[in-house]
Amino acid sequence: MKIPLLGTGSTAFGELWHYSIPDLISEAQHAALQSAHLTADAIDLIIVANMGAELWSGQGHLGALAAETIKSSAPALRIEAACASGGVALATGIMAIQSGMAKTVMITGVEKMTDHPAGIVNAGLMTACRNDVEYMAGASFASLFALVTRHYFDTYHIGRKELAAVSVKNHAAGYLNPKAHLRKKITIDDVLTAPMIADPLSILDCSPVSDGAASIIIGSPDYHRSPISIIGSGQGIDTMSITTRPTLTSFSATQKAVAQAFGMTSLTPEDIAVAEVHDAFSMAELIALEDLGFCQAGTAHQHVGTTKALINQSGGLKAKGHPIGATGIGQVIEIAQQLHICKQQKPNTPHYGLTHNMGGIGTTVAVHLFSIT
Amino acid sequence: MKIPLLGTGSTAFGELWHYSIPDLISEAQHAALQSAHLTADAIDLIIVANMGAELWSGQGHLGALAAETIKSSAPALRIEAACASGGVALATGIMAIQSGMAKTVMITGVEKMTDHPAGIVNAGLMTACRNDVEYMAGASFASLFALVTRHYFDTYHIGRKELAAVSVKNHAAGYLNPKAHLRKKITIDDVLTAPMIADPLSILDCSPVSDGAASIIIGSPDYHRSPISIIGSGQGIDTMSITTRPTLTSFSATQKAVAQAFGMTSLTPEDIAVAEVHDAFSMAELIALEDLGFCQAGTAHQHVGTTKALINQSGGLKAKGHPIGATGIGQVIEIAQQLHICKQQKPNTPHYGLTHNMGGIGTTVAVHLFSIT
Repeated sequence: MKIPLLGTGSTAFGELWHYSIPDLISEAQHAALQSAHLTADAIDLIIVANMGAELWSGQGHLGALAAETIKSSAPALRIEAACASGGVALATGIMAIQSGMAKTVMITGVEKMTDHPAGIVNAGLMTACRNDVEYMAGASFASLFALVTRHYFDTYHIGRKELAAVSVKNHAAGYLNPKAHLRKKITIDDVLTAPMIADPLSILDCSPVSDGAASIIIGSPDYHRSPISIIGSGQGIDTMSITTRPTLTSFSATQKAVAQAFGMTSLTPEDIAVAEVHDAFSMAELIALEDLGFCQAGTAHQHVGTTKALINQSGGLKAKGHPIGATGIGQVIEIAQQLHICKQQKPNTPHYGLTHNMGGIGTTVAVHLFSIT
Repeated sequence: MKIPLLGTGSTAFGELWHYSIPDLISEAQHAALQSAHLTADAIDLIIVANMGAELWSGQGHLGALAAETIKSSAPALRIEAACASGGVALATGIMAIQSGMAKTVMITGVEKMTDHPAGIVNAGLMTACRNDVEYMAGASFASLFALVTRHYFDTYHIGRKELAAVSVKNHAAGYLNPKAHLRKKITIDDVLTAPMIADPLSILDCSPVSDGAASIIIGSPDYHRSPISIIGSGQGIDTMSITTRPTLTSFSATQKAVAQAFGMTSLTPEDIAVAEVHDAFSMAELIALEDLGFCQAGTAHQHVGTTKALINQSGGLKAKGHPIGATGIGQVIEIAQQLHICKQQKPNTPHYGLTHNMGGIGTTVAVHLFSIT
C-alpha cells in the first residue's frame, strides 16, 4: 500500500468558544485544500470523523455539512467510532481510494466539547462504553481508566511517580507546539500533587476536553504524488465492556491493528522514527508503547522519553488536546510534519512514522504507518 | 458492478419497547447470518447505520457494539448520514468490497426512537438540518416538508386530495407486510380528516416514529454467489438548508444519485420492476417518482399506483415504518424479496429493483440498483 497524503490543515486545539462546528470544519478544510494546492471540485468523497456533535451541538449530518462548507456536491458521510473516529475514518478513506471509486478523498475530524459542564461531556463520552453496563454502573471514562491503572500498578509493581513521567514528557512537547491546547511545562511533583480525578489518576494524568478540527486529503497513487505516503493500515476491535476482558494490562485491539499495519510492509517497530499514540490517560501511553511493540510488557515506565521512536512530540492528547473526532486526524498531521523534520535532518535515509488512535477502553484501535521519500 | 447480496434479516418495525439497541442489532444480524448460511467469523467488516442512538439511547460506538453482539473482532464502524444512513452505509460497504480489503461485509441499520416524547424525537431529527438555520428558526421536519408541499401544490396546481392517494396506496401495501409498523388500511377521506401536523400535511401524510433493525451481508463476486446482486450505486449531496435551493419541487441529490447508479448499467427507469422510495412524507414520494425518472415533473400525482415499477410494496416508510438508520437497509431487504417474487412469476425474464434513501430535505441521497438471475 502506498497512499499519498496530499494536504493537511487544522485549527488550533483548545477552548474555541467563538467557533461553531461549521467554523471548525471549514477552517481545517480550507487549510488542507490550500496545502494540497487543490480546489474543492477535486474532492471525490468527503468523510467526517466525529463522536458527539448531536449531543454537544445539536448538529448531525456532518458529511453533508462538510460538503456545504466547501461548496461541494461530492458524496459525503460521517463516521463514528468513539475516540477512534479519526483513525477509522482514515482507514475508510483508504478503502475508498483502493476501490477505485474515488481518486481524492478529504477526511475531516471535528469535535466541539468545551461549551458544556463536565457532567454533560462525561455522559457523552460514556456513549463509547456499554450504556447497559458501564454507564448504568455510574462509571466515567476516568474511573474506568483508573481501574486499568490500578491493575497495571499491581501487576508490574509501579506507582504514580513512574506514571507521572508520561505527562511531564508530553507537556514539555506541547509547550513547543503552537496548536496545542495546554502549553505549560509541568513537573513530576505537579502531577503527584494535582487534584485527584479518579484515584490513582490526577487531573494531570488526564487529557483535556478540547475543541478543534483537523483535515487531510489523500489520493490515489495513480493520479497523485506526495513525499508523504500511508504505507500501512490496521484496525482492531475488542469487547466494549471491560468486564469481559481476560486482561486489562494490554489491549488486544492495539496488538491486532499494529500487526495488520506492519504486515503490509517489511518494517518492524524498530524502524519507526516518530509516533503519535493515544494517551487519553497517561496509563494509556504506557500500555500503547508495549502493545505497539516499542518495548516489552511491564517495562514501558523504564522507557518514557528514551524509546528509539520519539513518542507524542506534538504533546499528545495530554497537552495538545483531545477534540475527539479531530484527534486521529490531528495525529496524522503531526506525523507528516515530524517526518519532514526527520528528512531535513537526515535527507538520505528513509524515515517512518506511526499513528495509534483508540476508542473506548481499548475497544476500537486504528494504526497507520507513514513514510517520507 | 455486480455485488452479491448474500443474506438479509430484520426485526419487525414498530414500537419495540422490550428491545434495547443491542437486542435489535443482534436479532437482525443473526437472521442475516442464518439467511446467508455464514458464521460470524466469515465477516471481514462490520458497518452500522444509525442516526441518533447517543441522543435516544445514550449509546454510541455502535460499530464495536455490533461486533460484540456477534462475538466478532473484525473492523467495525458506524456511519451516519441522517435518514440516508442505511443507503450511504451500503455504498460504503460496496467500496470496501471493491477495494479488495474485505470479502464479506455485514451492514446493519438500527434505530430506537419510540421511548421518547415527540419533542425529544423531533429535536433529534432536526440534527439532520443546520442547527444554526432551521433548528434555530423553530422548524420541525414536518414543517419543512409542509413548506415543500405547499410550494409543490402552488407550482403544479394539485391539492391534499391528490397527495392523499400516496398514503392510501402505501397503507394498503403495509397491511399485507407482517413486519410493517402500521398494518391498517386507510381511505382518502381518512387522510383529509386526520389531525393536521403541519399544514397541509396531516398525520397520515407523515411516516411514523419507529424502532427496528435490518441487516444485510454483501460479498465479493470473486468469492461469493447469489441470485440477487447490486448492480448500481449512486450518491448525491445538496445543501443542508432549504433556504439556499433554486427549487423545492425537485431534489438534485436524487437526480444525481440515480444518474450515477444507472450510469453503471445499461438500464433506464423503464426497466425497473420494483422500487422502494423514501416517502418520509407523502410529498417526498411524488417528488421521488419524478426525480428518479419514473414520470415527468409535476405529473406524479397522475401515476400513483399505476407506474410501471411497483412503488413501496413494503408499505414504504409511511406504513412499514421509519426507524431511521434501519430504513435504507430495510429497503434493500424488501427489494430482494420482491425480486424473488418477480422471478417466481416470470422465471425467464430479467427483473430489476431500485432503492432510494434520503437524508434531510433532499440533502443526502443514495440510490441502488438490483438484479435477480
